[in-house]
Amino acid sequence: MSIALFQNCTLATMAGDSAPYGLIHDAALVAEAGHILWAGPRADLPARFATLPAHDLGGRLMTPALIDCHTHIVHGGNRASEFEMRLQGATYEEVARAGGGIVSTVTATRTATEAELVASALPRVDAMIAEGVAVIEVKSGYGLDTETELRMLRAARAIGQHRDVTIRTSFLGAHAVPADYAGRADAYIDTVTIPALRAAHAEGLVDAVDGFCEGIAFDPAQIARVFDVARDLGLPVKLHAEQLSNLGGAKLAASYGALSADHIEYLDEEGVVAMARAGMTAVILPGAFYTLNETQKPPIALLREHGVPMAVSTDANPGSSPMTSLLLAMNMACTLFRLTPEEALVGTTRNAARALGMTDRGTLAPGQRADLAVWDVAHPAELAYRIGFNPLYKRIIGGTL
Amino acid sequence: MSIALFQNCTLATMAGDSAPYGLIHDAALVAEAGHILWAGPRADLPARFATLPAHDLGGRLMTPALIDCHTHIVHGGNRASEFEMRLQGATYEEVARAGGGIVSTVTATRTATEAELVASALPRVDAMIAEGVAVIEVKSGYGLDTETELRMLRAARAIGQHRDVTIRTSFLGAHAVPADYAGRADAYIDTVTIPALRAAHAEGLVDAVDGFCEGIAFDPAQIARVFDVARDLGLPVKLHAEQLSNLGGAKLAASYGALSADHIEYLDEEGVVAMARAGMTAVILPGAFYTLNETQKPPIALLREHGVPMAVSTDANPGSSPMTSLLLAMNMACTLFRLTPEEALVGTTRNAARALGMTDRGTLAPGQRADLAVWDVAHPAELAYRIGFNPLYKRIIGGTL
Ligand SMILES: [Zn+2]
Ligand SMILES: [Zn+2]
Repeated sequence: MSIALFQNCTLATMAGDSAPYGLIHDAALVAEAGHILWAGPRADLPARFATLPAHDLGGRLMTPALIDCHTHIVHGGNRASEFEMRLQGATYEEVARAGGGIVSTVTATRTATEAELVASALPRVDAMIAEGVAVIEVKSGYGLDTETELRMLRAARAIGQHRDVTIRTSFLGAHAVPADYAGRADAYIDTVTIPALRAAHAEGLVDAVDGFCEGIAFDPAQIARVFDVARDLGLPVKLHAEQLSNLGGAKLAASYGALSADHIEYLDEEGVVAMARAGMTAVILPGAFYTLNETQKPPIALLREHGVPMAVSTDANPGSSPMTSLLLAMNMACTLFRLTPEEALVGTTRNAARALGMTDRGTLAPGQRADLAVWDVAHPAELAYRIGFNPLYKRIIGGTL
Repeated sequence: MSIALFQNCTLATMAGDSAPYGLIHDAALVAEAGHILWAGPRADLPARFATLPAHDLGGRLMTPALIDCHTHIVHGGNRASEFEMRLQGATYEEVARAGGGIVSTVTATRTATEAELVASALPRVDAMIAEGVAVIEVKSGYGLDTETELRMLRAARAIGQHRDVTIRTSFLGAHAVPADYAGRADAYIDTVTIPALRAAHAEGLVDAVDGFCEGIAFDPAQIARVFDVARDLGLPVKLHAEQLSNLGGAKLAASYGALSADHIEYLDEEGVVAMARAGMTAVILPGAFYTLNETQKPPIALLREHGVPMAVSTDANPGSSPMTSLLLAMNMACTLFRLTPEEALVGTTRNAARALGMTDRGTLAPGQRADLAVWDVAHPAELAYRIGFNPLYKRIIGGTL
């Protein structure tokens, strides 16, 4: 019998009810066949569930399992030596001459087998799982050739076989212009990115299509060509936009009905309005802001004012955010960008699901997947408050302890 | 036979030799009776050790176990609700009216039993141990009355009984002026702090004496009265100095031959010179800088120039640094203050021992305690490079796996 009753807990349903966090004290939750059947105050538990053998959660807090909606967690190598060189005072040129920057990750990823990519990613994935994460979005984008882009996505899918975690892939062929196409970004888009996207889609490897719209990467017209293909293929899009400057990437993404625009430190009100109209989610990535010592913060007040939902993610990647703690991303979103702890938790549950176009998880409501996190905390604000501390008691996937 | 051979590892001896990190590749280490007997290239291993049964470390990196030399890890309650109120826009007065600030921690600590203080601290201690920490300094300072200050220190000592970790206590009666002495800081120093220090010392609870020299706490003359008593009692001193302004605290501490001045964001060159002359260690606490959104950084270049050793610590405390990851403190020291990864690791090993006046640990050298950390990394720079990731493979205490 795959029915389970959890009780003696506080629920943070994150369902957007009137109470902060959707808090329900002295609550119960019934899961059946992997989904939530009932959640509410224990006093209201229907009689037909009252006789089920109950898991007593000792008064702990239950939330939806966390969702990390923006990662580059599959890649070869790491960039610790580049991190060290920079702190030793090396110039950008010296780092580049030593093979640093994204080039080093592309080289390491191209030379790694699928099995090696999986093996090197798993400890990072395990760190996330240990903090109650049940969904991880994984991007390609360190291959920059068809073969390696597809291998990255296969590795991402394989992670979902090796671990009890849902993987959502994003094709990010338009991440950077590889060295052999230097100065020929258009040619790279046409002869590599788009064919690679079609090939990856044909193999069922693509859940969404992403791009990096920035002076150092691709301009809106180039991104649009990739998004046109995504539209033809029926794939949703999302975009790294307005991280270092404002090229109007979020507006472009909005015109494609994108799921999200991510980073958006330089987003202006026009872009915010476009996102609001398109029903997009803003993905806040404080790890890169922190690592790059940036000072321009995303327009949180405008996003609130225009009702753009905010998600929060690690941006786990070897260069600008070698971070694998989603709880720490929540703390950084609060500490650096002044999100409230509730916004931070909405951002790693309900709104993170939204940024991935997933409607079956992210809240504790009947019909949602029973992917749950139980925490040794008295109040959900503690999740964003602590720094480098993991209060997870249990992660429950599909209603199974 | 309490003799153990570890091999197939890289050693980062941190012993101040010419090689960065004191790195020795393809190394071996022999521990006997809790201490390091021999460490060096495996090719040089004396024949008498070559026949010992060896622990193969699979090519991993071994460093000294880490040392967190500045924490307030024993306390009642937490300040998550204050964190949330501030982010919801509450004013300082509103937070204070709601019982927030250090007052709330003092209240929660005064009402906690010794057993409760230990129980609430242990998960935080365990988080540190899980990252390879073998020594934790613990301060009093949330009692601000004799009974509670002593209870905090007893709880700190008890942690060392519950866990395989060395606890060093610092008496911090001069942490804040309690509400019942508002406006009467001198009276508090004379009638509470100093008698409490004498009582704590009589009970063997004090390894060092600390204070908070700041406009919102105590002035140098008040700190000096406490340090005079410390000197009478033969106890070393250290000081929270120059965190928010420059009151000359580091210079005062230097005049007492202090072990360290901690925080020191506002330290000037005169203070740096005084610290150098007194042989003091500068304890760098990026967690509080990060949490408080400070902008004034400690004078790292001056500290280097004048040869003041730098230690790095979490400052684990419920208000300004609810952080329990020493690895993250290392990353923050690099990212926010531009320490090198090597300086960060020296700061949590050799120099952290120095900040505590301990000469028997912090490096991998013959005669030192065999408190070791083995890491799943290829290079020690990875320890500071990653954010929110714990690559510890094993912690080895007294040479025992
Ligand atoms: Zn990204
Ligand atoms: Zn402190």
